[in-house]
Amino acid sequence: MSQDQARAGGLFITFEGIDGSGKSTQSRRLADSLRAKGRDVVLTREPGGSPGAEEIRALVLEGDPDRWSAETEILLFTAARRDHLERTILPALAAGKVVICDRFADSTRVYQGVSRGDLRGMVDQLHALMIGREPDLTLLIDMDPDTGHTRALARKGHEERFEDFGPDLQRRMRAAFLGLAQEFPARVRVIDGNRGIDEVAADVGATVHEALA
Amino acid sequence: MSQDQARAGGLFITFEGIDGSGKSTQSRRLADSLRAKGRDVVLTREPGGSPGAEEIRALVLEGDPDRWSAETEILLFTAARRDHLERTILPALAAGKVVICDRFADSTRVYQGVSRGDLRGMVDQLHALMIGREPDLTLLIDMDPDTGHTRALARKGHEERFEDFGPDLQRRMRAAFLGLAQEFPARVRVIDGNRGIDEVAADVGATVHEALA
Repeated sequence: MSQDQARAGGLFITFEGIDGSGKSTQSRRLADSLRAKGRDVVLTREPGGSPGAEEIRALVLEGDPDRWSAETEILLFTAARRDHLERTILPALAAGKVVICDRFADSTRVYQGVSRGDLRGMVDQLHALMIGREPDLTLLIDMDPDTGHTRALARKGHEERFEDFGPDLQRRMRAAFLGLAQEFPARVRVIDGNRGIDEVAADVGATVHEALA
Repeated sequence: MSQDQARAGGLFITFEGIDGSGKSTQSRRLADSLRAKGRDVVLTREPGGSPGAEEIRALVLEGDPDRWSAETEILLFTAARRDHLERTILPALAAGKVVICDRFADSTRVYQGVSRGDLRGMVDQLHALMIGREPDLTLLIDMDPDTGHTRALARKGHEERFEDFGPDLQRRMRAAFLGLAQEFPARVRVIDGNRGIDEVAADVGATVHEALA
């Protein structure tokens, strides 16, 4: 699955960041704003984003947190991502649409890499073998970890076991996301999320406008 | 996951072959025979073999045959195999038991490789990255494809969509299994399955006895 195959059409934008950073809100705001300008937008999220991937998501996120090893979990996330890519993302890009995805491979790199250092290499090898595609533009909503943690806890649901990590882990994840921005400077833009929703949305809009131009 | 880690303990035996070759019957016969001699035996099967892997099995085998691409299916089988290995096979081997498994990685190599030639390399790379372990001994029950196909159709159930292939594909799979016996001569033994159950079982028993010695 080559970059060219998909890039021929639309634009693939991902939002990344720690829990509570406002990714989901900003994804919706950007989708609304681009639709208002007449763009055809597909708003999606991971894990999930296609019927099969949503079933795999349920298998991973529900039940006992220890039911899968980290390695099996990475395989299941990669299976879900492959399905999401084939069934939702690539067809939309080929039709010239803008795809906005709340979390993608960078989240797997950060979450698994922070939980166990030796897993980052495994995630990258699986990505290279089975996914290949990177976003055209990644908006990293950077957020004070204490604020993010408080926000994430306030909306904690049955599926949110990944958000039960505490502020120290949120700090390490923030650092890992900022590390990815350095590792992939061509596609990752850091957006300061410690501001009002409208200010952040304006910044996101300007960054995407530049990328679309 | 090194070979040594597991080989320190028990013995890992797999049965392979086309559908209807008698693998399941021979697996049970071998388990009974080794138990009668006082060996501690775990009899298992793929896809499945652990609670998590059985859930993934249901996700792959039930529903519309086209619900997953070949690549996503390989990822799901690999996730199931990783769980089966971690939760069932390796603990039993570490405790010195004999593990008898009805199908393992060779089935994925053959089924996926026969369906699309370019997939064999993907299966092997995923295996090297995420599984690593090969059986100590593989008993390939070789069977006339027409007989195997007739037998398989006779017991076709709701989950058996992999057996809907027709005799031509059974012939190609037989050839692919025999190819694996040439590729892995140190661990694969070909057993002539075109005989009565007792004769085949005696041949299997003698081969395993030799391996255990």
